[in-house]
Amino acid sequence: MGRVGLLGAGVIGGGWAARFLLSGIDVLLHDPDPDAERNVGEMLANARLSWSRLTMAPLPEPGSLTVVKEVEDAVSEVDFVQESAPEQEQLKRELLARASSAAAPETVIASSTSGLLPSRLQIDMAHPERLIVGHPFNPVYLLPLVEVCPGDRTAPGAIERAITVYRAVGMAPLRLQREIDGFIADRLLEALWREALWLVADDVATVSEVDDALRLGPGLRWSFMGSFMSYRLGGGELGMRHFLDQFGPTLKWPWTKLTDVPELTGELVEKIVAQSDVQAAGRSVRQLERHRDDCLVAVLQALRGQDTGAGAVVREWERQLVERAGRPSSAPEQDGLLVHSAVVLPEWVDYNGHAHESRLVQVFGDATDALLAAVGIDAEYLRAGGSYYTVETHLSLLREALAGQRLRVTTQVLGSDDKRLHVFHSLYRDDDDALLATAEQMLVHVDAGGGRAAPAPADLLARVANLTARHSAMPAPDGVGKRIALPR
Amino acid sequence: MGRVGLLGAGVIGGGWAARFLLSGIDVLLHDPDPDAERNVGEMLANARLSWSRLTMAPLPEPGSLTVVKEVEDAVSEVDFVQESAPEQEQLKRELLARASSAAAPETVIASSTSGLLPSRLQIDMAHPERLIVGHPFNPVYLLPLVEVCPGDRTAPGAIERAITVYRAVGMAPLRLQREIDGFIADRLLEALWREALWLVADDVATVSEVDDALRLGPGLRWSFMGSFMSYRLGGGELGMRHFLDQFGPTLKWPWTKLTDVPELTGELVEKIVAQSDVQAAGRSVRQLERHRDDCLVAVLQALRGQDTGAGAVVREWERQLVERAGRPSSAPEQDGLLVHSAVVLPEWVDYNGHAHESRLVQVFGDATDALLAAVGIDAEYLRAGGSYYTVETHLSLLREALAGQRLRVTTQVLGSDDKRLHVFHSLYRDDDDALLATAEQMLVHVDAGGGRAAPAPADLLARVANLTARHSAMPAPDGVGKRIALPR
Repeated sequence: MGRVGLLGAGVIGGGWAARFLLSGIDVLLHDPDPDAERNVGEMLANARLSWSRLTMAPLPEPGSLTVVKEVEDAVSEVDFVQESAPEQEQLKRELLARASSAAAPETVIASSTSGLLPSRLQIDMAHPERLIVGHPFNPVYLLPLVEVCPGDRTAPGAIERAITVYRAVGMAPLRLQREIDGFIADRLLEALWREALWLVADDVATVSEVDDALRLGPGLRWSFMGSFMSYRLGGGELGMRHFLDQFGPTLKWPWTKLTDVPELTGELVEKIVAQSDVQAAGRSVRQLERHRDDCLVAVLQALRGQDTGAGAVVREWERQLVERAGRPSSAPEQDGLLVHSAVVLPEWVDYNGHAHESRLVQVFGDATDALLAAVGIDAEYLRAGGSYYTVETHLSLLREALAGQRLRVTTQVLGSDDKRLHVFHSLYRDDDDALLATAEQMLVHVDAGGGRAAPAPADLLARVANLTARHSAMPAPDGVGKRIALPR
Repeated sequence: MGRVGLLGAGVIGGGWAARFLLSGIDVLLHDPDPDAERNVGEMLANARLSWSRLTMAPLPEPGSLTVVKEVEDAVSEVDFVQESAPEQEQLKRELLARASSAAAPETVIASSTSGLLPSRLQIDMAHPERLIVGHPFNPVYLLPLVEVCPGDRTAPGAIERAITVYRAVGMAPLRLQREIDGFIADRLLEALWREALWLVADDVATVSEVDDALRLGPGLRWSFMGSFMSYRLGGGELGMRHFLDQFGPTLKWPWTKLTDVPELTGELVEKIVAQSDVQAAGRSVRQLERHRDDCLVAVLQALRGQDTGAGAVVREWERQLVERAGRPSSAPEQDGLLVHSAVVLPEWVDYNGHAHESRLVQVFGDATDALLAAVGIDAEYLRAGGSYYTVETHLSLLREALAGQRLRVTTQVLGSDDKRLHVFHSLYRDDDDALLATAEQMLVHVDAGGGRAAPAPADLLARVANLTARHSAMPAPDGVGKRIALPR
């Protein structure tokens, strides 16, 4: 694609500018607001940061942004125009008429309108056959959805060209089967928004509570699965038909303010069930449930990283788990050494069929956690910020571990001082006691609060010294103090 | 908590069973359906897998599940009862009356009803003051939201005890300000669902299209930010008041089938604006936008891992980007060293907020793979079984890596012989070039087929020797040949 013309640079137009520019496309931008360029610059900075985090794939050199004085300058020498003016029909019609007089007849002109009908927007246009609606969602540079809707006079070729443009900048065009006010998504949003306004107006809930009711529950599902698929799963093994049978009647109850619902005739039920079967594409309810759960786990982990909404709930839950796990009365031992057990999970295995080195490091890390618990580092100590951090690990890999194998790590404390703990882990396959790997580690104590290397408190040191005395009296394992070098 | 009694083991009751059992709580379960135990077992298996992936925190030993014949057996010696029978008021009232006659007076009894009023459910109960609604969402073992609603006769103490129970199993209770049919979330869901049914009934969209309109757009936002906060951002720098001014009038347009909306009086606008300000907690629109974008990036990355919905769109976009960038003619280099890039994914981060050591080993492993590719070990060579295996890694950790940070690994070949490859990786934070970690590694060549250590073939050796000659002429990095030992 050559370059695009943008009319309007508010929240939506600025988002389009960012998406096109970061896709390597030059942009000519017109907006009467003198703040437009600053606004676009700020959105572009946010978008650039987001894209650089979103993907490791090679991004093209950004396109160039040119702010132009007149509508005509933005549209006369471009392949594609996207209009994002305020949501007023008369204003948009005049703007589109003016743009269409200046643009080449084959230039596709798209409107970002969130609800106005393309058949009305194209009335005053020269070459109305190249007008489509391309309705995006905020932030335009991250949300993939764009609803594509033709008007009465739109040519099929214009729709195809718009879809190609949107796909090329990473979007997912959803082509409407027929023109309707509000298209699809905004009709759904508006219905929910009206009810939300009633809940606040009637003092049933505050705006925060309404938002929490979404983002801690159904909103998590909606990030990967819409209402119909969610309800198919709500129907359990009996699926969509069962759901409609079971919950259809409750639609008649006066829950929401607005209760006009389509009659759930046999015909409508059959239509929904058939379309739902197509959507499920032969996957059983159990398969769909596992898919849903995998997605939820992934989304919850993502949000935990942001410490927000459901992710903040997961963090708090983890804090509780660590606290409750507390300190076992005594750590398991074998021949005087500490013992930690694990199983090779299927997802640890790489394309060779062997557990990846990184997952063995994870097992050694768990063994280190068990050692720390054994010397009395409990949840309270960790919460205050005190702990031992691993600063060096020397890992030797001797044999492969396969999925499902049970592992056993023995841990020997080789030495310690007021700040350091020198340990050696040996990882065995439980079946045949084969030594699979070893890890020699140096840990350093960090103090509560500051998180800096510092001597451990006296009571902890006493327990560490005790364990060190006991373990260092035993023979040192093979490989201690090894360095990596080619043989001479 | 001691143990809980569950009445009903369908999609919701089975989900409760899984959540309580995995939280280490014993469960007494009653359901007339002979399939109940199998259903719970299947849901428990899914839930166990999900929880083991969701967290690295220590999970307790699961509680024991006992299926009992009579309602009374499930409730008479437990601290807490959760009823999840079918959504029929008379059935629930009879069941709750029977349970309340058998349960100790102080046992809290919660109903999972998604819309029935607690004041009606408690009518026939002995000790109605301990009845609350605790309305969860499917899957109960993963979604944190539970709406807590008291009836007219519910005692405040019962609400507090229920909230404590729900928090203890990792949920986020949302306490309703007043009793209302459908509570909060289901009123919102129903409003959207009714509109969705109309869209399908009127052949505007199929069920898949409706679902895509959610999950590729607004549904992504709803996983971490509800309608009110989303629209505050839709108002740009002018915030909620501007949004209400700008889009308030469109609420009067006949978009949805149902258009009765609260009058946006000055009073209502002030209320919403004030509550929205409280929710924003002093964060500027730019701060909120960055937070939103960080969450969207995290969620998109999470869903990319699942190759579904918006995640599948991102994958396809990345394929396009790689294709358009073309295949690099040579491996990326910096100052003559090989360079590999990565981003700290949310799921790499442990409960301290830092990337786990094991994930940095994974990044070093990827850098090693890139090195092997650079000396010509291609997919065909790997498929035949030939490769270099890592046998030793000496890892030094200097600084923490946080979620979302971009990482860069430079790789220097320190030496090689006919079988061995001695390399040194340095991992930097891209933002500020801080050195976070190093890894010295010894790799050994294994031959195709046998998988035993063996000299590399001549052409591969020549390329390795070439790279070694080039890299070993450069200064050796700090830390080469280090061994782990306490200072003398």
